[in-house]
Amino acid sequence: MIPVSDLTAVRRALASHEIETPSWAFGNSGTRFKVFAQPGVPRTPEEKIADAATVHRFTGVAPQVALHIPWDTVEDYGALASYARDQGVRLGAINTNVFQDDDYKLGSVTNPDPGIRRKATDHLLEAISIMDATGSRDLKLWFSDGINYPGQDDLRTRQDRLAQALRETYDRLGDDQRIVLEYKLFEPAFYATDVPDWGTSYAHCVELGEKATVCIDTGHHAPGTNIEFIVAFLLRQNKLGAFDFNSRFYADDDLMVGAADPFQLFRIMYEIVRGDALHPDRGIAFMLDQCHNIERKIPAVIRSVMNVQEATAKALLVDRDALSAAQSAGDVLEANAVVMDAYNTDVRPLLAQVREDAGLDPDPMAAFKRSGYQERVDAERVGGEQAGWGA
Amino acid sequence: MIPVSDLTAVRRALASHEIETPSWAFGNSGTRFKVFAQPGVPRTPEEKIADAATVHRFTGVAPQVALHIPWDTVEDYGALASYARDQGVRLGAINTNVFQDDDYKLGSVTNPDPGIRRKATDHLLEAISIMDATGSRDLKLWFSDGINYPGQDDLRTRQDRLAQALRETYDRLGDDQRIVLEYKLFEPAFYATDVPDWGTSYAHCVELGEKATVCIDTGHHAPGTNIEFIVAFLLRQNKLGAFDFNSRFYADDDLMVGAADPFQLFRIMYEIVRGDALHPDRGIAFMLDQCHNIERKIPAVIRSVMNVQEATAKALLVDRDALSAAQSAGDVLEANAVVMDAYNTDVRPLLAQVREDAGLDPDPMAAFKRSGYQERVDAERVGGEQAGWGA
Amino acid sequence: MIPVSDLTAVRRALASHEIETPSWAFGNSGTRFKVFAQPGVPRTPEEKIADAATVHRFTGVAPQVALHIPWDTVEDYGALASYARDQGVRLGAINTNVFQDDDYKLGSVTNPDPGIRRKATDHLLEAISIMDATGSRDLKLWFSDGINYPGQDDLRTRQDRLAQALRETYDRLGDDQRIVLEYKLFEPAFYATDVPDWGTSYAHCVELGEKATVCIDTGHHAPGTNIEFIVAFLLRQNKLGAFDFNSRFYADDDLMVGAADPFQLFRIMYEIVRGDALHPDRGIAFMLDQCHNIERKIPAVIRSVMNVQEATAKALLVDRDALSAAQSAGDVLEANAVVMDAYNTDVRPLLAQVREDAGLDPDPMAAFKRSGYQERVDAERVGGEQAGWGA
Amino acid sequence: MIPVSDLTAVRRALASHEIETPSWAFGNSGTRFKVFAQPGVPRTPEEKIADAATVHRFTGVAPQVALHIPWDTVEDYGALASYARDQGVRLGAINTNVFQDDDYKLGSVTNPDPGIRRKATDHLLEAISIMDATGSRDLKLWFSDGINYPGQDDLRTRQDRLAQALRETYDRLGDDQRIVLEYKLFEPAFYATDVPDWGTSYAHCVELGEKATVCIDTGHHAPGTNIEFIVAFLLRQNKLGAFDFNSRFYADDDLMVGAADPFQLFRIMYEIVRGDALHPDRGIAFMLDQCHNIERKIPAVIRSVMNVQEATAKALLVDRDALSAAQSAGDVLEANAVVMDAYNTDVRPLLAQVREDAGLDPDPMAAFKRSGYQERVDAERVGGEQAGWGA
Repeated sequence: MIPVSDLTAVRRALASHEIETPSWAFGNSGTRFKVFAQPGVPRTPEEKIADAATVHRFTGVAPQVALHIPWDTVEDYGALASYARDQGVRLGAINTNVFQDDDYKLGSVTNPDPGIRRKATDHLLEAISIMDATGSRDLKLWFSDGINYPGQDDLRTRQDRLAQALRETYDRLGDDQRIVLEYKLFEPAFYATDVPDWGTSYAHCVELGEKATVCIDTGHHAPGTNIEFIVAFLLRQNKLGAFDFNSRFYADDDLMVGAADPFQLFRIMYEIVRGDALHPDRGIAFMLDQCHNIERKIPAVIRSVMNVQEATAKALLVDRDALSAAQSAGDVLEANAVVMDAYNTDVRPLLAQVREDAGLDPDPMAAFKRSGYQERVDAERVGGEQAGWGA
Repeated sequence: MIPVSDLTAVRRALASHEIETPSWAFGNSGTRFKVFAQPGVPRTPEEKIADAATVHRFTGVAPQVALHIPWDTVEDYGALASYARDQGVRLGAINTNVFQDDDYKLGSVTNPDPGIRRKATDHLLEAISIMDATGSRDLKLWFSDGINYPGQDDLRTRQDRLAQALRETYDRLGDDQRIVLEYKLFEPAFYATDVPDWGTSYAHCVELGEKATVCIDTGHHAPGTNIEFIVAFLLRQNKLGAFDFNSRFYADDDLMVGAADPFQLFRIMYEIVRGDALHPDRGIAFMLDQCHNIERKIPAVIRSVMNVQEATAKALLVDRDALSAAQSAGDVLEANAVVMDAYNTDVRPLLAQVREDAGLDPDPMAAFKRSGYQERVDAERVGGEQAGWGA
Repeated sequence: MIPVSDLTAVRRALASHEIETPSWAFGNSGTRFKVFAQPGVPRTPEEKIADAATVHRFTGVAPQVALHIPWDTVEDYGALASYARDQGVRLGAINTNVFQDDDYKLGSVTNPDPGIRRKATDHLLEAISIMDATGSRDLKLWFSDGINYPGQDDLRTRQDRLAQALRETYDRLGDDQRIVLEYKLFEPAFYATDVPDWGTSYAHCVELGEKATVCIDTGHHAPGTNIEFIVAFLLRQNKLGAFDFNSRFYADDDLMVGAADPFQLFRIMYEIVRGDALHPDRGIAFMLDQCHNIERKIPAVIRSVMNVQEATAKALLVDRDALSAAQSAGDVLEANAVVMDAYNTDVRPLLAQVREDAGLDPDPMAAFKRSGYQERVDAERVGGEQAGWGA
Repeated sequence: MIPVSDLTAVRRALASHEIETPSWAFGNSGTRFKVFAQPGVPRTPEEKIADAATVHRFTGVAPQVALHIPWDTVEDYGALASYARDQGVRLGAINTNVFQDDDYKLGSVTNPDPGIRRKATDHLLEAISIMDATGSRDLKLWFSDGINYPGQDDLRTRQDRLAQALRETYDRLGDDQRIVLEYKLFEPAFYATDVPDWGTSYAHCVELGEKATVCIDTGHHAPGTNIEFIVAFLLRQNKLGAFDFNSRFYADDDLMVGAADPFQLFRIMYEIVRGDALHPDRGIAFMLDQCHNIERKIPAVIRSVMNVQEATAKALLVDRDALSAAQSAGDVLEANAVVMDAYNTDVRPLLAQVREDAGLDPDPMAAFKRSGYQERVDAERVGGEQAGWGA
């Protein structure tokens, strides 16, 4: 049992937790086989921000929304940031996109063609200019670059090209800006990806400097990879910058975080708690990156935020003293039991309390449903072109 | 060393081998991130057939082309069959598509909505009517049906629905028609797929009857699956109907067959040879099912056909007597060596000879390049809508 | 919320649930690198049974213990059964062992050498004689048979040999006896295993007849395999006979069931509940098959039994009516939420109540610790040869 | 076609290639289920060296043999080195063993108990003393350390302990000595391993300094990992020190290198050739680390050496100019074709020529068989205790 005084600390930690939502989660998405459109989907960046703000209004812990360029391109980013503030949220990470132009068929910053590399790097630099306007801290870099066939291009030369583009981009960063460099095992490249694993991202970030950190997308690993080990290791190296949360059974399924393996999410959040990295001041961005292909999008994001909260609450409930004692004593069963005791606790009443303390409805899903927001946007957002991946 | 008399049999076997090409391999394809268009891509089923006929003209072993409905929908299938004959090829398997209509968001024949199940089953029945017109033997069924989240639908009830649709379809088959039922581990469904593995396909086929057989897509398995075991097992059970050939490093990458693991392709073809199932009379359809996302499509198909041929030639070169002797003696190294001896043989001269015997250029890739076909279609096929997956 | 009347049914279901423990879980085990011995480990089948009976005494739901032959070979099996009854448990499945004799280096029932096949089959027949003496219902067959190198032996011929041995064994079964046929992807064979997946086991069982059923070892699948699908499918086909429960992160790790992925265990047990297959009368054997390499063995088995109970309790708490309604309506989020609501419930108080109703201590782990049993056997079981895998 | 002048360079490269054999490959090995003993297996380090020297005698490219301490513990390592020289080989890497003492049940250098950490680190230091005596350059470190259950020990603290032991060991290295640090995904630990991937090994090596490099065991990766990418990346970072060659279909199967995926071995060796890292002067140790559980051991090692040679020969035959041209032009099919052209070449005649140039029999397997060595040691090595993993 956790004493009441500790529960106060847990509640405080939960109240200060921040989860960043992605603008594109509110747009249409799908697989290569089909994108199923949904009613009420935003047509503009503003409508996406309105949906993200709705998620924040009901959860209280999602005050920031990430943009994807060019999907969220606008004339005036200052005005967009101001719009977001009016809605009660802030603009967060700027996500670059160097994978949807015809030029990028064989890569962007690692393309054999120097002209295309130049174009891709320029896009990264432009994204920093957008960050200047939005006040964003994080430049999120994901490169779809890779090759499909052995021999198609030279693995090592592509690393040289990658390093060069990263260096140029890094040098353009302002004092309060940073790179978070994502890695991914495969897709859309099917033989070799230029940043396939955390080790590659880490090595480049170390060479770049302090303002470059690794971004862990929880769906981007080989089967069997122990993600919480990577979390613990990167925290120790001071090189963890961000998460792209989602969940997967097979590949980069992009399901709602916590839906496929809630125990894994708990173990990840435990390493965050253990590394004292939960508070926003610690600089870890907890972002969602998901595809709600078949489920309604806004409640799916609300559910995802709640799933992260529940995993975090359980992680905070781990009796760290008892755990240390069992670990030191080499008591395998007891140490595991301490962790499982927290995991098996139903934290939903605790989180309901945290929400009530913050003046929120204790049940965000029910409150959203009652709010009529979905029905309203379904009715209003007719005509125009629904937002999507823009491919 | 293989004696000359045996080489004659090998050459004869290679000359009679038939590989079926898919109409959609000549159209555009891509990943969920981007479809990169190519010049010269067909705009009509006829243009696809012309490309397939070109592959046959240079390889001599690809006389049949599979259609995908509705991607290859035409008014008059008899006329299309006639057009194909004029081009020197035949129409092959009819592939059904119950995954791209908005109605199929939650499934086709396993959808909770009986009206949608009816619609999907009707499509399957319609495909048999097309087979009647084209003279096709094989109805290829691939169901993208599945669910993304635990609880989304009832796993067992969906099997009941599947069985019902299969039964109705089976009962509509003509005497010389059959079902080949594909299975796939995941994608586009990300938690459970309704026909995820060969066991599921097999069990349904056994219950349906003799005219239902399993189709093995070489990219549809869990990591580590021994595909040649499945080939051997299904041949023993008399339930192997077809292959969808392609290759993969990770998931359903749909790369050119033999590109990722040529040794695996050889092992698969060895089981075919060992099971005496190579000749067209034996009823196994050797089809390609690939996505040439970044490489030129026609030469990619030619290369794929050649890869299958090379693996087959090596399989035919295995010294079966020496292998049996080593296996019976429990000589692990020698038995493996007999197999590797065939695999390590450079069979390209042998295949060049087989082609020359058939009056073909010994080097299909070079001959195609010299032919100017690509340049011609690049120039001619301008305007109109390029064929693709139609999503 | 589950109404009280339903909770009564849940409690009744939990009280009647039976989990079979394996004698070998109490002996030493390890990896190929090292077997770490523990104090207090049994030296005899009787001492193993005493440990199993201890697990039952504290959990109330583990009344049966499986034997492994020859590890548990005794002169008089009737006497052993009587000893077990005196301890408060019954003898359960007889596990055969055709993998530890030098003769079995290249296989047992699929060995190229007919003499070795004879010897292996005779062992299976002898195990049925033991079943006659112990009153056991289940003959558990696991074949380590397979090959390490391509070509080492003929895949298809090995199936013929396997079928022959299974047929002979099946025909020897008494009226109330049955075969449960295990499958395993790999280990100790590293290229091809003769019964690698459920499909292979299923096909052989169908050919054998009604008294042959499939045994699912939860650690024996390729990465990404959806085990609960297999459960649902085999229940539908009336061919699920037994589970070998354990858990794994990577391969056949044989960790405590529920330790690696408690959500998966819940999903498996949900399919059991949904298929109305929980009650012992339904003939599914819920067995543990684990290796407690580094943790104390008796409490590890108690914890494992409790893990299965907790997963089962959650599965029983799923609101089936609400689930069906959401599934029929195609409400993806709501259907998933119904399932997650049960999973997120803390069922430990409910199970404590079930135990108290049965006159047991509500906390089996604590009660076992207080009992002094471990200290007693640690002190008593000195000298002699500790039981292990006997390799 | 490769011009004759280039073939001379290829032959020279092949003649200078060196492959290190492991003493333990000649001893007995097995799985956790069974170690099958073989006749003729060495009883002493000297007999193992004699077998390794035999491999060298027939292949000409295996002049160095790695030792495993304590399996190869002797009184006088100088005398052992001298014995090796007399046999025509040198002593190579010293492999440490901190996984088979009862103390190491919960880890060695990462154990919660500081006394056990001290003991383990002392073993590492002792191994360097042995290196001083044998003149070995490489201290190979493989830590089986890890945990089986979430919570069992603290992931991050274990990294601190690991770093401390590595630092102390590193500081003890002589000027011409170095650490090669192995990584492994899992086994014998089944939840988290303390050095699970190349990134972890790399990060520690970077912090240690120039004399610490990464060792790639080709069987130690998650499914789908692109090993040649890691090779290329580590060469670029100047941090690749060694290979432990073997092959696998599933986990750490430890089959003969090249047996499971010869195309992968070719791709790995191509990155070596492309990085100009083949020559012994470049400091990459090409070691075998295999388990010949069921096949005869000496010929299995000969075959493995030949497999590496064949992959290397093919890698050397890649037409680098043509490849670069195709890559620069973005010609996917042509670039792939250049690589495949080399892979599809039968290099056995070329290697036969290289052997004849060196005064060796062109067919090492046949020559070994004819030599009568196996029969002789089978007859002589009777009695005593066969070498094995010593567990």
